[in-house]
Amino acid sequence: MEKILFQCDYNEGAHPSILRRLAETNLEQTPGYGEDVYCAQAAEKIRLSCGDDSLAVHFLVGGTQTNLTVIDAALRPHQGVLCAETGHINVHETGAVEACGHKVLGLPSRDGKITAEDIRKACESHRDSDSFEHMVQPGMVYLSNPTELGTIYSAKELQKIYEVCSEYGVYLFLDGARLGYGLAAPDNDLTLPLIARYTDVFYIGGTKVGALFGEAVVIRNEALKKDFRYLIKQKGGMLAKGRLLGLQFDQLFTDGLYLELSSHAIRLAERIREAIDEKGWPYLVENRTNQIFPIVPDEALEKLGERFCYSYDHRVDETHSAVRFCTSWAAREENVEALCAAIREV
Amino acid sequence: MEKILFQCDYNEGAHPSILRRLAETNLEQTPGYGEDVYCAQAAEKIRLSCGDDSLAVHFLVGGTQTNLTVIDAALRPHQGVLCAETGHINVHETGAVEACGHKVLGLPSRDGKITAEDIRKACESHRDSDSFEHMVQPGMVYLSNPTELGTIYSAKELQKIYEVCSEYGVYLFLDGARLGYGLAAPDNDLTLPLIARYTDVFYIGGTKVGALFGEAVVIRNEALKKDFRYLIKQKGGMLAKGRLLGLQFDQLFTDGLYLELSSHAIRLAERIREAIDEKGWPYLVENRTNQIFPIVPDEALEKLGERFCYSYDHRVDETHSAVRFCTSWAAREENVEALCAAIREV
Amino acid sequence: MEKILFQCDYNEGAHPSILRRLAETNLEQTPGYGEDVYCAQAAEKIRLSCGDDSLAVHFLVGGTQTNLTVIDAALRPHQGVLCAETGHINVHETGAVEACGHKVLGLPSRDGKITAEDIRKACESHRDSDSFEHMVQPGMVYLSNPTELGTIYSAKELQKIYEVCSEYGVYLFLDGARLGYGLAAPDNDLTLPLIARYTDVFYIGGTKVGALFGEAVVIRNEALKKDFRYLIKQKGGMLAKGRLLGLQFDQLFTDGLYLELSSHAIRLAERIREAIDEKGWPYLVENRTNQIFPIVPDEALEKLGERFCYSYDHRVDETHSAVRFCTSWAAREENVEALCAAIREV
Amino acid sequence: MEKILFQCDYNEGAHPSILRRLAETNLEQTPGYGEDVYCAQAAEKIRLSCGDDSLAVHFLVGGTQTNLTVIDAALRPHQGVLCAETGHINVHETGAVEACGHKVLGLPSRDGKITAEDIRKACESHRDSDSFEHMVQPGMVYLSNPTELGTIYSAKELQKIYEVCSEYGVYLFLDGARLGYGLAAPDNDLTLPLIARYTDVFYIGGTKVGALFGEAVVIRNEALKKDFRYLIKQKGGMLAKGRLLGLQFDQLFTDGLYLELSSHAIRLAERIREAIDEKGWPYLVENRTNQIFPIVPDEALEKLGERFCYSYDHRVDETHSAVRFCTSWAAREENVEALCAAIREV
Repeated sequence: MEKILFQCDYNEGAHPSILRRLAETNLEQTPGYGEDVYCAQAAEKIRLSCGDDSLAVHFLVGGTQTNLTVIDAALRPHQGVLCAETGHINVHETGAVEACGHKVLGLPSRDGKITAEDIRKACESHRDSDSFEHMVQPGMVYLSNPTELGTIYSAKELQKIYEVCSEYGVYLFLDGARLGYGLAAPDNDLTLPLIARYTDVFYIGGTKVGALFGEAVVIRNEALKKDFRYLIKQKGGMLAKGRLLGLQFDQLFTDGLYLELSSHAIRLAERIREAIDEKGWPYLVENRTNQIFPIVPDEALEKLGERFCYSYDHRVDETHSAVRFCTSWAAREENVEALCAAIREV
Repeated sequence: MEKILFQCDYNEGAHPSILRRLAETNLEQTPGYGEDVYCAQAAEKIRLSCGDDSLAVHFLVGGTQTNLTVIDAALRPHQGVLCAETGHINVHETGAVEACGHKVLGLPSRDGKITAEDIRKACESHRDSDSFEHMVQPGMVYLSNPTELGTIYSAKELQKIYEVCSEYGVYLFLDGARLGYGLAAPDNDLTLPLIARYTDVFYIGGTKVGALFGEAVVIRNEALKKDFRYLIKQKGGMLAKGRLLGLQFDQLFTDGLYLELSSHAIRLAERIREAIDEKGWPYLVENRTNQIFPIVPDEALEKLGERFCYSYDHRVDETHSAVRFCTSWAAREENVEALCAAIREV
Repeated sequence: MEKILFQCDYNEGAHPSILRRLAETNLEQTPGYGEDVYCAQAAEKIRLSCGDDSLAVHFLVGGTQTNLTVIDAALRPHQGVLCAETGHINVHETGAVEACGHKVLGLPSRDGKITAEDIRKACESHRDSDSFEHMVQPGMVYLSNPTELGTIYSAKELQKIYEVCSEYGVYLFLDGARLGYGLAAPDNDLTLPLIARYTDVFYIGGTKVGALFGEAVVIRNEALKKDFRYLIKQKGGMLAKGRLLGLQFDQLFTDGLYLELSSHAIRLAERIREAIDEKGWPYLVENRTNQIFPIVPDEALEKLGERFCYSYDHRVDETHSAVRFCTSWAAREENVEALCAAIREV
Repeated sequence: MEKILFQCDYNEGAHPSILRRLAETNLEQTPGYGEDVYCAQAAEKIRLSCGDDSLAVHFLVGGTQTNLTVIDAALRPHQGVLCAETGHINVHETGAVEACGHKVLGLPSRDGKITAEDIRKACESHRDSDSFEHMVQPGMVYLSNPTELGTIYSAKELQKIYEVCSEYGVYLFLDGARLGYGLAAPDNDLTLPLIARYTDVFYIGGTKVGALFGEAVVIRNEALKKDFRYLIKQKGGMLAKGRLLGLQFDQLFTDGLYLELSSHAIRLAERIREAIDEKGWPYLVENRTNQIFPIVPDEALEKLGERFCYSYDHRVDETHSAVRFCTSWAAREENVEALCAAIREV
């Protein structure tokens, strides 16, 4: 029997309506490199969803590519990017940001988030130093929302962070690889218009939320808009058949599909949480998005592992481990039910 | 009336059988990042086609990404890459190779090709210099086949180039973004096994030959195999749903589809050449692949431009211009007929 | 009254005998870029001091330059360099290593040192990870000796570190910007031959130990020797009048001057320690080299600050601060006496 | 008998008055990293000589370092630097600019110079291209004055180049490694105030004009002034004992020493030209600065080579070669006389 995969949120292909549109338009002839009508259309829908028609929207293929392109576009050579020590760019992108010449300045974090106060301290401490020119200057703040630990920022928190960034002349960049799962969380009060307003640049993840691949970069800051397409091309992120990205985001932003798919994942995640709560297992981090981080007795884990794949985080003590289960837009009810039943049983 | 596009070979989507397979497998769960069964299967078929089961095969999304990843993986910081001045990496990748720290060392070329002798001279001249340590050391040779001007290398030429490279300790890398159109050309005598044998690394282009996107990197040299996946990840080229690449190449390398699609484009290109020959228009460069570079009277061009898109190369004299028409796996007979008729008429 | 500077060890020029030699040879004509007889002579003396005539020796101008050149010469793009979080390359070189594309992988450290066990754990943890290719691969270990906190490695410690590095295929690089002050410390048991044997590459600092400027890089590992001069040139470290470096190191390695100057600094540092000990002030870190890190009552500090410059490290509690006093080859007895008296008095 | 060196202009040390000042101030205590009184004083004198008290002045050690630091400080990642194909950064710096991520965009040049028209064409051709985002954007123009072939720009030429640069939003950077020898040339009409006015940034070379080492960067453009010291530090160009640079430039800009030393070299170069002219040897390039490029019969060359070192440029035909003789601030009358006599005799 094949195991059921819960270890990440990109095990399947795309929402069937996306495949359908790719098929329908397959032999249409369009210009390349994102200068087609579908990209234009998708960008327009995203601007509309964000409530700001001055936004620049670009489509890239994947997350690491997007992160490195945005960050390298923004920073001067002596600048680095502040982020939580657990931030994806600091840990899981094989030094992509450093390969562009910039230091990632990790800040301690318990739950994957950093605060306005953390950022202020880092900027102040840089300014105050006797030898500030011998140290990397913070030039950007990188947040992920949801974070790598599934937590989310509140509207208030984001606004405060943005205000500190503005005060210190530091760009604010929000990685939204799983943005839908944040927006659909029961305890979320952020919206696309708020995010567009309280960041300089952010992206809306498609790869993990219903698309085959694709991330939509949304830029509000004029300085960052300038020449951004050169950067996309140079970093290898400009898809020849750019319309494939346009078509997917056009579909995701038609009739609320993006949020609908996200909500599906959240609903199923909540069921898994119920099973875990009944069991009394604690969490590494509490959150309400599509990533669940229970601390599980090793014996139970072994049992679950016979039928389900999860992602192993770390050993907590001699008999317990922190692991991750993910739901996604594609998670099937019956599989989630099977997992819940198994949790209850072990 | 919509214009018919002949300006490049990536205006359409993918061969229908590829879309079909994406649809069929859409909800299967597979591991990410190219570690799925479809990638393994496609790699195996490519190794078989190349007649060498020791080859490493990796799948990346696009050409610029592939070029920069391969080149950066191969070179030490003080090394550069020799190529024809017209080489794609020297002209049309926004300095992607330089952004990785390496100089592109352009060699003069009339037809997009360079010779074993050109390479020998460049290496000798470096070695002989009084101040060689003050100059970039050639560490790799980059060829494209077909070249940016549609010309191809013969087996003999490639072998000689490879021998010179080996003699000077310089890697040989062949960019096969349009490889199928070279292999299917009437005057070609290269084969995949010969290319695999007489290069250190090359790639088989999918984007321009029937796939939605994708380039298959084939590495023979052991030193280049080491840790290559780290490089793919760092440069942003590791597709989360890697199976999309595996599936496409698996399909292209089933029942000879790759060559079949390539031959289609060549057959139609030959028809366009016939029309041009009848007209007596000369060529910027003679070739038999899918790119055609006639020198056309401006008046005729204006007329053709009403119904067809072509790519403008440069002004040749006051009344003539060099342009490019491309066919592709997706070119339709009726469109090509229409173009041929229009050429004959003007 | 001018204040007396104890904040660092590069406030003065060079040992008078060095200036004398520069003057004597001033109008001699020599070839540039380190290919002169004085560089050859100095390299030979250093090889002799290290007891290994196969060592490659190169002269660079400054420490940051040397660190970035050595590290970039050694690493492939996906590799990073392990070091103590307090390591100079991690904190005080404006991201010079990252600007070459490589992540600095900081390891927690209380006293500026890291252990063989720390390194083993970092390498093991990388290897064991599920997603190791998504993380920076350790390619080198960077130690400074003395460290930024004035501590030193014992021969046994260095040997063990070297053995772990060899086991994991990771280069070991020792930054000896203050090497003399380590070798002259009363509790030191390292020697140049031992360092040459138990590292792949290290350097002997001149800037802080009697020269106007200059660091002598000593390479034992054959792989690192290859083409190193290209790297020096590319990074801007190849002095046109290279003989200035050769002459200085030739002088420092004549009649034991290097160690003599170092011992002078250590002797005076010990006197300052005596005064501090009498006072009962604790140390941030205990060490016996030329940097002294007492924790001083703020009132006392203010008083001392009227006549002496020190380097402020950080606030320890509401009424105490950690500071640094440095002696050097150029420190004058009478100034040290004045400082000691002042400490005793406050 | 030792040969007399004419192959370059950095065979000797420094003007004796410079060594004297280094000796006099040797044991003074000053802060490091260019924040001492001598650097301030030298900067002030340079501002005065340039007639603009808003200029930022920084001191670096060598030319390659200066070039890469200035260029990397100025450009965004997708931008490159236009220069003559013979420009030092394009040929003799081991790809230092590319190692910072930027392409050097070489323009054809017969005499080492480029014109305002060349620059305009390059910028226009970039703008006009269909696929401009796929190509490196010109972000800076690099001139050397005198050029690598000893030629110089007139005030009118420089002004026109600056105007074109301003029109296209491209920085103008002038490499003055041999600036003195240009200013002292009989056919020169440039002055420091004119250069400061008609560039965004330039530097005044010390290494080749009387100093042990050192280049003084002069920045007029406000955007380039920002955070420049971070860049110096990151690239390894911030000398710990920065006063060594300040002292040297202070001396060179006292009592007109810089121009006096330059004029000496020019006077002696003119004598060598007289001997060559008498002989009837043609020149590779005509110029009146300290580099002389005669085309010499190989037989004569062999004879001269017995007593004099020159720099071999290239073979012109079967019996003639282009070579370079340099004079410098340190050239001795009797040596020049000996060379002239030898030329006349062969």
